[in-house]
Amino acid sequence: MYRLISKHGRARRGEFKTVHGTIQTPVFMNVGTAAAIKGALDTFDLKDIGCQVELSNTYHLHLRPGDEVIRDMGGLHKFMNWDRPILTDSGGFQVFSLAKLRNIKEEGVYFSSHIDGHKIFMGPEESMRIQSNLASTIAMAFDECVENPCERQYAQDSADMTVRWLKRCKDELARLNSLDNTINKNQMLFGINQGSTYRDIRIEHMKQIVDLDLNGYAIGGLAVGESTEDMYNIIEAVEPYMPEDKPRYLMGVGTPINIIEAVYRGVDFFDCVMPSRNARHGTIFTSEGILNIRNAKYERDDRPVDPNCGCHTCRNFSRAYFRHLFKANEMLAMRLAVIHNLYFYNNLMAEIRSALDNGKFSEYRQSKLGVLDRHI
Amino acid sequence: MYRLISKHGRARRGEFKTVHGTIQTPVFMNVGTAAAIKGALDTFDLKDIGCQVELSNTYHLHLRPGDEVIRDMGGLHKFMNWDRPILTDSGGFQVFSLAKLRNIKEEGVYFSSHIDGHKIFMGPEESMRIQSNLASTIAMAFDECVENPCERQYAQDSADMTVRWLKRCKDELARLNSLDNTINKNQMLFGINQGSTYRDIRIEHMKQIVDLDLNGYAIGGLAVGESTEDMYNIIEAVEPYMPEDKPRYLMGVGTPINIIEAVYRGVDFFDCVMPSRNARHGTIFTSEGILNIRNAKYERDDRPVDPNCGCHTCRNFSRAYFRHLFKANEMLAMRLAVIHNLYFYNNLMAEIRSALDNGKFSEYRQSKLGVLDRHI
Ligand SMILES: [Zn+2]
Ligand SMILES: [Zn+2]
Repeated sequence: MYRLISKHGRARRGEFKTVHGTIQTPVFMNVGTAAAIKGALDTFDLKDIGCQVELSNTYHLHLRPGDEVIRDMGGLHKFMNWDRPILTDSGGFQVFSLAKLRNIKEEGVYFSSHIDGHKIFMGPEESMRIQSNLASTIAMAFDECVENPCERQYAQDSADMTVRWLKRCKDELARLNSLDNTINKNQMLFGINQGSTYRDIRIEHMKQIVDLDLNGYAIGGLAVGESTEDMYNIIEAVEPYMPEDKPRYLMGVGTPINIIEAVYRGVDFFDCVMPSRNARHGTIFTSEGILNIRNAKYERDDRPVDPNCGCHTCRNFSRAYFRHLFKANEMLAMRLAVIHNLYFYNNLMAEIRSALDNGKFSEYRQSKLGVLDRHI
Repeated sequence: MYRLISKHGRARRGEFKTVHGTIQTPVFMNVGTAAAIKGALDTFDLKDIGCQVELSNTYHLHLRPGDEVIRDMGGLHKFMNWDRPILTDSGGFQVFSLAKLRNIKEEGVYFSSHIDGHKIFMGPEESMRIQSNLASTIAMAFDECVENPCERQYAQDSADMTVRWLKRCKDELARLNSLDNTINKNQMLFGINQGSTYRDIRIEHMKQIVDLDLNGYAIGGLAVGESTEDMYNIIEAVEPYMPEDKPRYLMGVGTPINIIEAVYRGVDFFDCVMPSRNARHGTIFTSEGILNIRNAKYERDDRPVDPNCGCHTCRNFSRAYFRHLFKANEMLAMRLAVIHNLYFYNNLMAEIRSALDNGKFSEYRQSKLGVLDRHI
């Protein structure tokens, strides 16, 4: 499945074969929470901006339209009209961040829908059944996402329960994959490392989940308010314990520089709502730094928002027009901004892969530090 | 400029040559009020859905980003990246429907911006200067839009003033077109017939504006609350007085059936916000009738919203997915709906033109009555 093509320090250039096509890594997955990208992008737009993997959300799709509707429509690929890989998260993060009246038990989590308040139970088996109905390429394990900061004892107990849940996920997915009417019988499972900011708990937990021989491993519970240094430290702590022949996924991260730094530390997969969320507020990532297109200085600026970018927005529209669309609250502003920011992220990954292929990753990293994260 | 290709009863098949290309008529103009189509469509999307003429709004663009900004950016065509004809309305309708604290004088209208309340004066000369800065293909005359119902004396006085304003529009535009730094020196002017629902005032007014020998004539002040019968009666009353060698434009109309009925009565140009506004609420025009895609019966419907439609939405996405996007409040829902509804309108006009070309307009009209306007 995962093939390591080359290594540069800890940074890895690889590819990951799936039934829905081969993913070139490092890769950024584009977030389409409810089977649609925020900002009015459809799956044809996703192809135009170079998206390799779409990421959808188990919790949201379970509530609306219902995973059984999507199963009846032939699975998420057919529902959205997307033939490349899809990763579904487990719903765990949303259960712990959006849902009300949570009650966490060994069997799973009792909670109320954030939409209409109706009571729902979700445990490892339920999460796998939903993801099997969605028929994504990669299912994520159902885990508890602890808050930051978190008491050591709570982090330890939660990490232990997450291992027990992970075993149940693995067993249930194997059972589901063996059923005749399962849409994607090759659905893969990634386990998720937890343990808050405690290095020893993280490492011990990583060893335990690696023993379960899953298709890939994620580092979860980061980018939840800890410092960037803490985040990099945790990656550096657990990375040596992650198998070399499996992909590594850093969940919910991050800025372009965060991504370059995590690749440098051995990570292969990324996802983040930042490029699309920031886009909707006019915050644009460019090859020269970060700008806000609403700024008055762009009123008569006829250059593209990023002169070095090949996206639809930059090829066709000026900063002046783009700024006007934001000031006039036109929906088109958000679409053009999301197209650019996601293209920028996907292109960043292509540049990283190319730098790795050419043995120039170290120079590439140095050339971007202090540039991509400055405000211009 | 306008060439009458064939006539079928009062219905006309023609073409209208402009510096930005030839318009095949009857035509529906797609409304992009603030230089953008509501629903996150850009000018590339407009080409995909078969739009011949884009319509933008003088009042909105004067306020935001300012017509001088657009002039400095090379005019509206360059600003939006659109190389086909653009019609700008005069701002009159918005001054009378959106602006606050109106004070109507012989010289023009004093009012306050609906955005920030600042005081603005707009008269015939100001409207022409703004439209000259926008550099649209066709400028509309600045007129008073009276409310419905309207007292006879008020309607008469207003119609008289509109003739005086129209002469000032014509003189000012001729002056602007002769200036060296004018972007579109071939900007054309359409006059607007007014007179509320009084047939004799309408007819007398039409005769007076036709005497001014303009590039085209619009029927304004309809679709403002009067009955459909009243609207058709007014068209029938004034149409015989409209020159055969000039295009006729029915402003702000209407449903697919309204358009077919107005073509039948001799109209060539149309515009309406209905297809895009309805789209944003899930109301979809189809070849079988009008449906609301939010309806529960579409939950597992894998057919396109209109099986007879060739638009991007219908070629690629199911009713089930489309409904889900609306229920989940995804911006993509509106984009896909607007794409379909505008394609439907543009395609309706292509069908009308084809029926006229083939001498089958009467049959076409009969086959659509009771179908396109039924709710399914
Ligand atoms: Zn770009
Ligand atoms: Zn369609």
